Amino acid sequence: MGYNLLKGKRGIIFGALNDMSIAWKVAELAHQQGATFTLSNTHVACRMGSVTDLAEKTGSEVIPADATNISDLENVINKSTEVLGGKIDFILHSIGMSLNVRKKRPYHDLDYNYLNKTLDISAISFHKLIQTAFKADAMNEWGSIVGLSYIAAQRSLYGYNDMADAKSLLESIARSFGYIYGREKKVRINTVSQSPTVTTAGSGVKGIDGLIDFSERMSPLGNADAEDCANYCLTLFSDLTRKVTMQNLYHDGGFSNMGMSLRAMKQYNKSFDSDDVNDLY
Amino acid sequence: MGYNLLKGKRGIIFGALNDMSIAWKVAELAHQQGATFTLSNTHVACRMGSVTDLAEKTGSEVIPADATNISDLENVINKSTEVLGGKIDFILHSIGMSLNVRKKRPYHDLDYNYLNKTLDISAISFHKLIQTAFKADAMNEWGSIVGLSYIAAQRSLYGYNDMADAKSLLESIARSFGYIYGREKKVRINTVSQSPTVTTAGSGVKGIDGLIDFSERMSPLGNADAEDCANYCLTLFSDLTRKVTMQNLYHDGGFSNMGMSLRAMKQYNKSFDSDDVNDLY
Amino acid sequence: MGYNLLKGKRGIIFGALNDMSIAWKVAELAHQQGATFTLSNTHVACRMGSVTDLAEKTGSEVIPADATNISDLENVINKSTEVLGGKIDFILHSIGMSLNVRKKRPYHDLDYNYLNKTLDISAISFHKLIQTAFKADAMNEWGSIVGLSYIAAQRSLYGYNDMADAKSLLESIARSFGYIYGREKKVRINTVSQSPTVTTAGSGVKGIDGLIDFSERMSPLGNADAEDCANYCLTLFSDLTRKVTMQNLYHDGGFSNMGMSLRAMKQYNKSFDSDDVNDLY
Amino acid sequence: MGYNLLKGKRGIIFGALNDMSIAWKVAELAHQQGATFTLSNTHVACRMGSVTDLAEKTGSEVIPADATNISDLENVINKSTEVLGGKIDFILHSIGMSLNVRKKRPYHDLDYNYLNKTLDISAISFHKLIQTAFKADAMNEWGSIVGLSYIAAQRSLYGYNDMADAKSLLESIARSFGYIYGREKKVRINTVSQSPTVTTAGSGVKGIDGLIDFSERMSPLGNADAEDCANYCLTLFSDLTRKVTMQNLYHDGGFSNMGMSLRAMKQYNKSFDSDDVNDLY
Repeated sequence: MGYNLLKGKRGIIFGALNDMSIAWKVAELAHQQGATFTLSNTHVACRMGSVTDLAEKTGSEVIPADATNISDLENVINKSTEVLGGKIDFILHSIGMSLNVRKKRPYHDLDYNYLNKTLDISAISFHKLIQTAFKADAMNEWGSIVGLSYIAAQRSLYGYNDMADAKSLLESIARSFGYIYGREKKVRINTVSQSPTVTTAGSGVKGIDGLIDFSERMSPLGNADAEDCANYCLTLFSDLTRKVTMQNLYHDGGFSNMGMSLRAMKQYNKSFDSDDVNDLY
Repeated sequence: MGYNLLKGKRGIIFGALNDMSIAWKVAELAHQQGATFTLSNTHVACRMGSVTDLAEKTGSEVIPADATNISDLENVINKSTEVLGGKIDFILHSIGMSLNVRKKRPYHDLDYNYLNKTLDISAISFHKLIQTAFKADAMNEWGSIVGLSYIAAQRSLYGYNDMADAKSLLESIARSFGYIYGREKKVRINTVSQSPTVTTAGSGVKGIDGLIDFSERMSPLGNADAEDCANYCLTLFSDLTRKVTMQNLYHDGGFSNMGMSLRAMKQYNKSFDSDDVNDLY
Repeated sequence: MGYNLLKGKRGIIFGALNDMSIAWKVAELAHQQGATFTLSNTHVACRMGSVTDLAEKTGSEVIPADATNISDLENVINKSTEVLGGKIDFILHSIGMSLNVRKKRPYHDLDYNYLNKTLDISAISFHKLIQTAFKADAMNEWGSIVGLSYIAAQRSLYGYNDMADAKSLLESIARSFGYIYGREKKVRINTVSQSPTVTTAGSGVKGIDGLIDFSERMSPLGNADAEDCANYCLTLFSDLTRKVTMQNLYHDGGFSNMGMSLRAMKQYNKSFDSDDVNDLY
Repeated sequence: MGYNLLKGKRGIIFGALNDMSIAWKVAELAHQQGATFTLSNTHVACRMGSVTDLAEKTGSEVIPADATNISDLENVINKSTEVLGGKIDFILHSIGMSLNVRKKRPYHDLDYNYLNKTLDISAISFHKLIQTAFKADAMNEWGSIVGLSYIAAQRSLYGYNDMADAKSLLESIARSFGYIYGREKKVRINTVSQSPTVTTAGSGVKGIDGLIDFSERMSPLGNADAEDCANYCLTLFSDLTRKVTMQNLYHDGGFSNMGMSLRAMKQYNKSFDSDDVNDLY
């Protein structure tokens, strides 16, 4: 769908890793809509071949950065305006990581150094990125900054751990800085609260896949996938949504406003048949 | 727990039918806390023995009323101030009914006369009741009015039908009139969004019970029952919550802020075992 | 901005009256984006020259309808699919009216016949319209229905009266039917909660204009105007937002998430200077 | 109002500094309701005479602690159960501080070391406190933990700076740990979102007082003061609210659900008179 919706717009896309990434899809589709942009990810990630492939495919430059490091961010901002030939119109922040999750520290036994890292990488980096752009006056008027969030910011999901708190903080930063950047430079800042997205790991029946299945059956339109999300981000980067700011926007097939769907209830009720069956044998 | 929390307070309790009713529990516990009150319900309901039993037990007078009828409401308000010997301190509105639900008209095939009835009985009656009290200047300063709601007002639950819309309207009326009654007479108005409550019908495994089971497993403290709810209402009628108004207060064991619990997910995942089992036979 | 964003899409636009109307702007811009559509409004409104002008300008047919009347709605739906040559892709519902407001009945002295009319015209008409389309199976898959709302649905504004309750009901209907229409036909339903929009009446300093001024100063990007809103509606009708449903989307320059802005506070504080000045003279 | 509402209950109250503090009022009123408790605050604060006065008045022991320091928190928990003779029934967390605010670093020029301190002191300390209690199994079943918050967690207020983000994080922690502590030990965790509270600094017309004045005129019941808040906290510590958990509860005279009040609008509109006056002179 080549509408030229982002024709002439310059952007920076953080977080593309492989073709399962939402940021990857955003890059592909923004390219298709006429945008030019740079790509950024951690130094480790940027050494992986796939990011280079994406860069080639979309005619982009890759600028590695630790998103928690101010001078790295300054470098991304400065180089991007240089390379792209002007101020920036849109930024995607798709960055998150929890060592507590990785190291299997449950929420009632958090390691607080890990927690600080979770917050720094997944939320404070958003502030650092925006503050760096703000100080460099690097965004055009009516520019648009989007961070990716998840409904765990509002509702507790077992196992999501300290990432829930990081997402709450991320969304708060979008509001707090959205007020200031809007007031001072007419730049809008929003978060997109996206469906759980199927990962490289594939889809079995149990564990995290149970949640994705539940979410799929609860959502009248089903889970939104990475490409859906990228399309939605395009609208937020476009000139058609100039007065939308400080919002957390659910992009989830309706999940956020469902209490119980017929499909999910039917599936849930099968669990009792299972018990019956077990009772019989 | 006789704290005398409502000592000297006068109230009106709408909607007590039998000892499963939340309003019934509110009456019992308010009596225990030193309140005096009148009971109101439809003419049909008031002819049932159980309401009379409750009235005797709590030393209350029963004043039948169609809660959609202004002159009936005027009668309840006037008689109540007469019988109780002064202005009213608290009112409970526990009234709701949908003919579309009863007559099994699904939400995409509503009968609009039924819908009007649903809204009139379940939501507009709340406005009528409050406006009647307001015009009669029948409430004491710092009085408290509570309506009972359900999370369907925010999130869609299959089968809850037009009652969802009625609850949204009810909560809106609490806000709208809460502003005016607070400003003019320092009367607060809130709604309590209560867990699904087990009814006379008993608890099997399927159908509506599936939802109650799911809600129970999702809520870290389990579903709140009618007695829990009544206790909570007492605090809202007391002098300890004078500055709480225009709120919709979730009384639900935590359900409203849960995305997925371990217990509900475990049960849900059993449904796939069931499929496996079915596959085998 | 001719992106051909709605190329080949067929729509129905309710509520265009004159060039101040949001629906009017939606029609102009949807036309520019390649959509074809019909226009509907009350019989009285359709006899006014301006609607005919818009129809000519956009190559549209006008189909008058009382939006609370099922057979009128059936006629709009049927004629529209006929005229446009296929199923419908998008519908805009921009309809609202309160006799209590017009007749200056304050919220604590509502006329309940007027209230029923307010709800019927401003909210239930949304259900009637959607149910009519649903029964006629008149929408294409991934079609999009948008209703216009206002933040009064969440927060009380003096003088907005029973329209606040109507907007709450409207938003609830969007959720309730959004679930069903999404599940059954993949049609999405959302409401846009729009800034207060300057009307024909012009803008002085006092009265309703005080609210618009306050809203303007509170919103970091200022109030959104009718054209901004129309642009936003285009994105919701497009294929780029397919997984957004059951949402109430704030399009308000950030107002909804503001507690207090510097600009509004400065203006507010001037009011005390005024008192000082008055004290002196 | 001595209802013996907390008779036999043991608590820990963090953050009482002087008789303007909400925590101070909670201590006084909890004592009056029959509770026994310990008091905790920073080492510096505890050396001030006033905390000792409160301790004497309420028969409490003071246990100094840096609330960001785990071993200090372990000491408070352990000593408290020792001194009080059993497990804890309620905890109040009234702790917050921002060096960015104090050092006048605006939100678009944050010092990130200060931000880390803001989050650690004002939000993560809540997690540390709860995790410490959880690990020590120091709470009784149906115990209640309350943190104090402010609406800045949802809506941006100029000048509130990084405390807004800290409050968002605090409320998220209440939800996240509320799920786990509820599930495992039936302990509830909530935050109270309190009106802006008049401080020692006194009340003039400009600056922060402008906000308090605005909030007072917007709220139909006026701002809630420290004593109101303390009374509300009592209900949350009592056995009457056992099924309320994971909630952020607005205690604000209705402010949170107001869009615009008559009183605030009148005052705001005076600001334009002021301009007129200025124009004339």
